[in-house]
Amino acid sequence: MSRLPALSELQDPGAFARRHLGPDAAEQRGMLDALGLASRAELIEQTVPPNIRFNGALELPPALDETAALAKLRGYAEQNQVWTSLIGMGYHGTLTPAVILRNVLENPGWYTAYTPYQPEIAQGRLEALLSFQQLTIDLTGLELANASLLDEATAAAEAMALARRVSKSKSQRFFVDRNCHPQTLSVVQTRANGFGIELVVDTVDNLSSHEVFGALLQYPDTHGEVRDLRPLIAQLHAQQAIACVAADLLSLLLLTPPGELGADVVFGSTQRFGVPMGYGGPHAAYFASREAYKRAIPGRIIGVSKDARGNVALRMALQTREQHIRREKANSNICTAQVLLANIAAFYAVYHGPDGLRRIAQRVHRLTQVLAAGLERKGITRLNTHFFDTLTLEVGGAQTAILESAQAARINLRILGRGQLGVSLDETCDAATVGTLWDIFLGVDHGLDVATLDAEGLAPGMPDELVRTSTYLTHPVFNQHHSETEMLRYLKQLENKDLALNQSMIPLGSCTMKLNATSEMIPITWPGFALLHPFAPLDQARGYKAMIDELEQWLCATTGFDAICMQPNSGAQGEYAGLLAIRKYHESRQQGQRDICLIPASAHGTNPASAQMASMRVVIVECDEAGNVDLDDLKAKAQAAGDKLSCLMATYPSTHGVYEEGIAEICEVVHQHGGQVYMDGANLNAQVGLARPADIGADVSHMNLHKTFCIPHGGGGPGMGPIGVRAHLAPFVANHPVVPLEGPLPSNGAVSAAPWGSASILPISWMYIAMMGPRLVEATEVAILSANYLARQLGAAFPVLYSGRNGRVAHECIIDLRPLKAQTGISEEDVAKRLMDYGFHAPTMSFPVPGTLMIEPTESESKAELDRFVEAMLAIRAEIEQVASGQWPAEDNPLIRAPHTLADITEPWARPYSIAQAITPSSHTKAHKYWPAVNRVDNVYGDRNLFCACVPLADYRG
Amino acid sequence: MSRLPALSELQDPGAFARRHLGPDAAEQRGMLDALGLASRAELIEQTVPPNIRFNGALELPPALDETAALAKLRGYAEQNQVWTSLIGMGYHGTLTPAVILRNVLENPGWYTAYTPYQPEIAQGRLEALLSFQQLTIDLTGLELANASLLDEATAAAEAMALARRVSKSKSQRFFVDRNCHPQTLSVVQTRANGFGIELVVDTVDNLSSHEVFGALLQYPDTHGEVRDLRPLIAQLHAQQAIACVAADLLSLLLLTPPGELGADVVFGSTQRFGVPMGYGGPHAAYFASREAYKRAIPGRIIGVSKDARGNVALRMALQTREQHIRREKANSNICTAQVLLANIAAFYAVYHGPDGLRRIAQRVHRLTQVLAAGLERKGITRLNTHFFDTLTLEVGGAQTAILESAQAARINLRILGRGQLGVSLDETCDAATVGTLWDIFLGVDHGLDVATLDAEGLAPGMPDELVRTSTYLTHPVFNQHHSETEMLRYLKQLENKDLALNQSMIPLGSCTMKLNATSEMIPITWPGFALLHPFAPLDQARGYKAMIDELEQWLCATTGFDAICMQPNSGAQGEYAGLLAIRKYHESRQQGQRDICLIPASAHGTNPASAQMASMRVVIVECDEAGNVDLDDLKAKAQAAGDKLSCLMATYPSTHGVYEEGIAEICEVVHQHGGQVYMDGANLNAQVGLARPADIGADVSHMNLHKTFCIPHGGGGPGMGPIGVRAHLAPFVANHPVVPLEGPLPSNGAVSAAPWGSASILPISWMYIAMMGPRLVEATEVAILSANYLARQLGAAFPVLYSGRNGRVAHECIIDLRPLKAQTGISEEDVAKRLMDYGFHAPTMSFPVPGTLMIEPTESESKAELDRFVEAMLAIRAEIEQVASGQWPAEDNPLIRAPHTLADITEPWARPYSIAQAITPSSHTKAHKYWPAVNRVDNVYGDRNLFCACVPLADYRG
Repeated sequence: MSRLPALSELQDPGAFARRHLGPDAAEQRGMLDALGLASRAELIEQTVPPNIRFNGALELPPALDETAALAKLRGYAEQNQVWTSLIGMGYHGTLTPAVILRNVLENPGWYTAYTPYQPEIAQGRLEALLSFQQLTIDLTGLELANASLLDEATAAAEAMALARRVSKSKSQRFFVDRNCHPQTLSVVQTRANGFGIELVVDTVDNLSSHEVFGALLQYPDTHGEVRDLRPLIAQLHAQQAIACVAADLLSLLLLTPPGELGADVVFGSTQRFGVPMGYGGPHAAYFASREAYKRAIPGRIIGVSKDARGNVALRMALQTREQHIRREKANSNICTAQVLLANIAAFYAVYHGPDGLRRIAQRVHRLTQVLAAGLERKGITRLNTHFFDTLTLEVGGAQTAILESAQAARINLRILGRGQLGVSLDETCDAATVGTLWDIFLGVDHGLDVATLDAEGLAPGMPDELVRTSTYLTHPVFNQHHSETEMLRYLKQLENKDLALNQSMIPLGSCTMKLNATSEMIPITWPGFALLHPFAPLDQARGYKAMIDELEQWLCATTGFDAICMQPNSGAQGEYAGLLAIRKYHESRQQGQRDICLIPASAHGTNPASAQMASMRVVIVECDEAGNVDLDDLKAKAQAAGDKLSCLMATYPSTHGVYEEGIAEICEVVHQHGGQVYMDGANLNAQVGLARPADIGADVSHMNLHKTFCIPHGGGGPGMGPIGVRAHLAPFVANHPVVPLEGPLPSNGAVSAAPWGSASILPISWMYIAMMGPRLVEATEVAILSANYLARQLGAAFPVLYSGRNGRVAHECIIDLRPLKAQTGISEEDVAKRLMDYGFHAPTMSFPVPGTLMIEPTESESKAELDRFVEAMLAIRAEIEQVASGQWPAEDNPLIRAPHTLADITEPWARPYSIAQAITPSSHTKAHKYWPAVNRVDNVYGDRNLFCACVPLADYRG
Repeated sequence: MSRLPALSELQDPGAFARRHLGPDAAEQRGMLDALGLASRAELIEQTVPPNIRFNGALELPPALDETAALAKLRGYAEQNQVWTSLIGMGYHGTLTPAVILRNVLENPGWYTAYTPYQPEIAQGRLEALLSFQQLTIDLTGLELANASLLDEATAAAEAMALARRVSKSKSQRFFVDRNCHPQTLSVVQTRANGFGIELVVDTVDNLSSHEVFGALLQYPDTHGEVRDLRPLIAQLHAQQAIACVAADLLSLLLLTPPGELGADVVFGSTQRFGVPMGYGGPHAAYFASREAYKRAIPGRIIGVSKDARGNVALRMALQTREQHIRREKANSNICTAQVLLANIAAFYAVYHGPDGLRRIAQRVHRLTQVLAAGLERKGITRLNTHFFDTLTLEVGGAQTAILESAQAARINLRILGRGQLGVSLDETCDAATVGTLWDIFLGVDHGLDVATLDAEGLAPGMPDELVRTSTYLTHPVFNQHHSETEMLRYLKQLENKDLALNQSMIPLGSCTMKLNATSEMIPITWPGFALLHPFAPLDQARGYKAMIDELEQWLCATTGFDAICMQPNSGAQGEYAGLLAIRKYHESRQQGQRDICLIPASAHGTNPASAQMASMRVVIVECDEAGNVDLDDLKAKAQAAGDKLSCLMATYPSTHGVYEEGIAEICEVVHQHGGQVYMDGANLNAQVGLARPADIGADVSHMNLHKTFCIPHGGGGPGMGPIGVRAHLAPFVANHPVVPLEGPLPSNGAVSAAPWGSASILPISWMYIAMMGPRLVEATEVAILSANYLARQLGAAFPVLYSGRNGRVAHECIIDLRPLKAQTGISEEDVAKRLMDYGFHAPTMSFPVPGTLMIEPTESESKAELDRFVEAMLAIRAEIEQVASGQWPAEDNPLIRAPHTLADITEPWARPYSIAQAITPSSHTKAHKYWPAVNRVDNVYGDRNLFCACVPLADYRG
């Protein structure tokens, strides 16, 4: 038995890294051979500029295997205490239906999908999002809704921006009801500062005394008061001001919807529609407005269009509104939505239907009514006259004793100043909850009984004139899937329409569709992470603190920054938060005049949009033919800006997929002129372990945890965009009005609703780093290897547009379709759609350069999968040749007709190519065919005939 | 607000029942209208004979909603204590790879599938099972393997039966190594008694002194000894005896496989290949033997065949071996396998591959070696000379102190008598485990260090002559899917090939494919249920006891029985256990001569097989034309049997899907003649709440928890078949040698390896009953309503063969295809295969009557789904008409050609019907097409060219 290895050789610290990486050692060898390289190290030496190279080892703890990492994280989850949180303030207990929990939230078929930019292979989640919009429209009483924003507070800020854009008022002032949730107020205040809007925070009783372009009202307000908004809205409309209303979605099942009261914008959280509180997120905010304002509505809107056969086909509508088109003229930088959570909320409504939802709302309200009646009888003064689910109570000197009783019962109440307490009931409450609350407020001898009070004719909780009379959710989708079997099959039918990472690679440039490992996903639905209220006392969230502290430390080690702000809940939010920090920094040094933001021409559209939101003036820096920042132009423009220079925003590696040689010098130039460097973190995954933003010269950078650090894309969200900052900027990052954070100045406002953004998905990134440890660098190296391998394999057929030193690309590469289009008429879009027939999701289309495809393979794709992709691309190239040679007509060939559907082949076939060529063009498709659900979608028709609600079932098949 | 309902009206105790039932109130109303009925009650009155009607309310606690039921069950899970169990005895800690856990075990696409009797729509799980067989073949060194048995102990009994069948020896004696696991010995003893085989239990040193037809050896044995079996096997072969070897699968990665040592049968558990211990099960046993014995191998064998296009297609091979064909000539009643668990074990091997598995085995062994060396140095005597992972230690008087230390460390050791302790290491152990064990055995001052010993040249643990030299798992399937991305996609590709309940109804008569609700499934993977060793001390399993006690009580209330035996882990096992109880009962009353078992001609094939295994002589009772037991024939045969009459086995409602009027009288007749009544519980779901077996006259009955009580079929297992007995039989049910059970006589043997069978899936049935409460009766009523609705809707097109009073069927109905076949040549098989094109799984084919289809809709299918099925069946009827009319030739029409595949439509089409008719014959298929993976499978070819291992990849496409 001497051949048996020693234990030390049998340990396997690289086990997870091996699972995370696609190509194994032999496959990597093959890829290196194809590139003529001896080793990965040689590739990296050839590729990454030496002057920015980080040569140390990442200061991360050794990798844990999956079991050990899960065990450690479970320890943190168990340090969190799951109390009953009746704090309200926009976060409520809810029950996620098990069939949705397991088949959507825990199902890679849903959570690994990408944003539905390619609608033909995304009809499932587009249908779910359309239901989300219908839900919003029905419950708000407005005409048009989007498919989710990040949270209620940022939705409020977006509402203000919309109001500013559409109001005919000349005022620069925006009114905010002081009884809005404090975090909403804070985020709006932050955003108003950026836009140069003056906020008027007052009671609504004084509304008429202010001249404003719009107002934010809350319904019910943060103290639970339910007020008839009609008079207030009339006052606003009289001065051409826009009425924005934050509304509790559950209450709208019983209350007259704000749209019917005259509101112009209605928004709020859908969290309590089945999405766990998750210590603050992620949840989807809804947002509805008038048809007339459709071009000012932020975020993504799903619209109904038709496909090439004239059949109903869904898509993202009005994309020309989006920041990546409008750039510095945008009044919103919103990009990532909360698709996965919006889907869950929509499915919650599909599952319960109108009657089930009404029952839930009625039950919550009735419990509140009984609770209120009991408290009232025992002499406790309620401060809100009317209510849906929330009571604000005057308890005077008894406050401390009551809170102690509540603690003993493991119940969190809302603590208001001056002897006041708040309590909000929710779907998880029952008669026992009410009894316990009486015990807490009145002592156990209260003698009250829920059933007895329930049997009595209690005073109404809601004003008679606000009782909802209109119907809702009458579309069949909300009325057909109420047995679990039907619901399960409906979810499966939708899932089957979509192409996600569990079926094939999604080679999206800049979006980094890498593995979302199961072990990373498992913790997020543990009760210890999922069920905490974001404003629960900190001593109930010790596990969260430990986990977040550690993650921050690891991110610092990885990036070289000194501090992390975990609040921004998307990449664009991170940009915005980072720019605000730069602005405040300058202001703190009496350099408030510095407001010019230099942005390379190749930048992501969110960059100029964020700059504009942070009150900066955007100056574009040109790029040279190689795609690099034109250093001379930069110097000239920095010079010209002089003491107005605030900062530069740069992406590294560049959006052209290249390690620019000049990056260090670029940073120096900016610093020399007194500016700060904001590094867009979209491509951070090409730096990890090889270079560190702070070392290169960045002062602040956001990190897309949903790209580099494995949070799945969820079909278009959630994301997380924490920022790293150097020490001098640390005091200027976001703080929070409800949960003061250590580090930033107490006076700083919030950028998101919750203190740590979407805290409940942070375990995903924690797990990834814990399991990779210092081997994170291998992920980076293999990603670069894979991109260079693809560039090599594809280069002969499709010219690679940009490359850096030694002809190497970074982690992605751009191939140029323009010459072929000029020659044959076949466009990058045709190639993208044709890839669907081969079972692939298209690469990024026409960004950053029109007429190109940007391909990012990531480190998680095996060589076999890369080769399958290459095979498909080369086959498509050959197909283009057949068009070029005239063998196939320009208007009838498999490229122009792509993607092909079942409908194509079940009608008489009279095309110059065969059915087999159409639908099984590769050996893989013969064995594992994925079917696009619709033919090519007509974008123009959809925008010209905007329709953003559920379609009558009869329309589905032409 | 006077319109707001009171809280009492807003409670929703029927919430889960509503989710479980397919048709809502309106749909039920529509179905009743179609049947001309005023109410469900009227239907039941018309259908169920009044003399057996149970008119009380089920004595069950009120229904809990999903949240409350999960909370209560979580309380039980938390009462269980998850210690580190190093007890061994065939159960070991293991790590289920997260990607497999979530995407297979927790995925309805896998767990709701049916047994792959229809191979065209089951190629995914068939491929997984083929990998399972390949794994078995490779690791055992034998030629042919099956696709799982219930557990190692029953596999041992099956091995003995095989030996008896194939041995040329005249002996009736079977040798069992006394160092086999005690539960194996007990189950084999029980089975030997039934067969009239004499067991010789002795040390292997005495093997040569016995004349036997076969022997059971264990490798390594229960005390961990690794012995060269070659001399023993030679002795056996010299006397034409069959060598059966129980082997630990993990050890075979390092040890010479028993097949290479000459063994004829090798079997064992695959539990430690990623399947949680689950307090005893379910896990899959593997079973391998020689090609020559292929017709004697029990259970299901997956074989490679070809489809109508000549492409590779998998199927269950040699089905003519199965009990449902051989009936009373069977030497095994095995039916349910452990498909879901076999798949997990196979995927565990796919995921780790040969190198990964070897590393795990080497690590376990090396840890054991280090542990052994340390103990040896400190003077503790080891009783086994060689070992793989298990040490048996002589500790003398220190036993108590050591056990106390172990308790303090929350470690379970195996307690052997006479101052001996056993310890078995596993995949979850590490150096710290070894250190702790030293602390426990030696006290903390032992001064040993794992790394130090590891660095030394330790004495070999395994004999040099038994070090494995042969390769294994060289097939690509075990070498391609090692990144998580590849593994995830492989699992998805397989899943996509199969049709499961998450896509459409599976209307299988007798198999009751009802909803397996997510809330029922969630608890089974909680650590508190999943991670317990079945022989852990009872005080660590208090939650299990509470849950099982309650479940037993509920099953008693439902059936009227006095006691439940939870041990049988399949329906057939239940039959066998019930018949054994009857036999023992007769024996206890000096009526041991009673050995005639009356079985109606229409019975399930397992009935006669079970009777034969319980040493009974089967006498068939005829059925009349209406499908009912011929009472006169029964009386005559009971009379004729006289004091030899042991029992009657009857299914109720009958296998013909009818409530026989005479059942009470039938039972009376049997009782009058001194016999007992065994009621086959296959159709218990048509009795629950309406009638109770014990009230009707049954003395014993098994309950298919995987049919009536919602355990999913898992693609062909697991199941659970506990039996209910009246008080007089209670002392005679199974007991257990390791964990003595309360109730049965201590001398009774075991029928399954674990005391409570597959304990870890019992939470599923517990949840179902807890959430339905007395509303269980609604499930029964709706199931009957649905069956009668289908019978009515289909009756005009396809004659319904049997019906009971008022022309009503019970919960299923049989339609007769024979007249159509006679007229057109279109068979029931053509209809079954054609249903696949419509997206349906076929009903049960040709059971109990050849040429028919038996349809059971269950209560969980909505009227919409039933109507979709009816639409498909009527469309098929119309298609048959087109054959009848000559519009389509008899040899080229969509029925004969069904099912249709992608391959069909990608070759030039030259058929008398269109592609659209072939693949989208209904509106549903246009929107939600399911594609069978292969064309019709050639059964004859597969059996004539038996090949049961993985196919070279190149063969997959012709």
